[in-house]
Amino acid sequence: MKTITFITGNKHKLNEIINIIGDNSMFQIVHRKIDLPEYQGDLEFIVEEKCKSAIRIVNGPVLVEDTSLNITALKGLPGPYIKWFMDAIGAEGLPRIIKDWNDKTATAICMMAFMEHIDGPVHIFRGMIDGKIVHPRGRLDFGWDPCFQPNGYQQTYGEMDYSLKNTISHRFICTTKLKEFLLNYSFN
Amino acid sequence: MKTITFITGNKHKLNEIINIIGDNSMFQIVHRKIDLPEYQGDLEFIVEEKCKSAIRIVNGPVLVEDTSLNITALKGLPGPYIKWFMDAIGAEGLPRIIKDWNDKTATAICMMAFMEHIDGPVHIFRGMIDGKIVHPRGRLDFGWDPCFQPNGYQQTYGEMDYSLKNTISHRFICTTKLKEFLLNYSFN
Repeated sequence: MKTITFITGNKHKLNEIINIIGDNSMFQIVHRKIDLPEYQGDLEFIVEEKCKSAIRIVNGPVLVEDTSLNITALKGLPGPYIKWFMDAIGAEGLPRIIKDWNDKTATAICMMAFMEHIDGPVHIFRGMIDGKIVHPRGRLDFGWDPCFQPNGYQQTYGEMDYSLKNTISHRFICTTKLKEFLLNYSFN
Repeated sequence: MKTITFITGNKHKLNEIINIIGDNSMFQIVHRKIDLPEYQGDLEFIVEEKCKSAIRIVNGPVLVEDTSLNITALKGLPGPYIKWFMDAIGAEGLPRIIKDWNDKTATAICMMAFMEHIDGPVHIFRGMIDGKIVHPRGRLDFGWDPCFQPNGYQQTYGEMDYSLKNTISHRFICTTKLKEFLLNYSFN
């Protein structure tokens, strides 16, 4: 069985991915916390460079993830910089920065990048879900979850049972694509 | 006379620096436009890494610059990500993102990094000026200049004559420190 090292320090993300990937006889996900520098730029560039940095350290199959919250009123920002905004202004602050706009829509995006070999290709996966930014409701322990209400639901991510969130989220969609890819992938 | 390559594609920044550095017999500033990737993180880290990337390409004395607009209400953001915000929401959008806060204060920061040799130290310089974010007034051709009114002035950067701006700005303060350093620096 092949081992894929998922680089994260975030238990929530790890648990979401392990729940979705589930048991299989082909590969297992382990995790390792490494502080990888991240570039500024578009999400695809950021996750690709992060993956290349990770494999230079891990020197084996590696998986990285990056999340973006694209607010329509801000033409896609904070986007990949959302984590800095959450650190600075928190869930309470997020609806405030767009208070002066009527359009409250946003898109949550999860990007993952997988490499098996340091000189091999980078495989990139994307999961997206549309929704809107609301005043925080629900659990405050996972970034912007309480501020994001996916279209078609009356609950924010922060109000949903994990069992529901983990079957609809941007990370679920992305991880599902990754899983399909890996189940058909020939490890060397 | 030594040549220092300033990496920028921005004519305004180049002119500001050349105006401030002025004529001297020790060194001259030339410029070159190279798209250097920039990391996310604090401004000192970003400018240091940018300088190291630049010298690997230029292979000679190199100068890089990075600007940050730290809005107090947003606990220092957009900070180094201000250029992405200007691209997205423009000068009109900047006061809107903090409309819901009473505190309109902000600090403009210029950081420069200079290296002579690829294996030598990185010298970092900082210039800061406090002010406030206002609805845009004046020239709209240089990023957030029309939105930033320095303390003690009734004009925004965008309303000031360049001759005034270039003797008070965050970039002026930083460039002055750089100039003092370079005039006492022994090039190898």
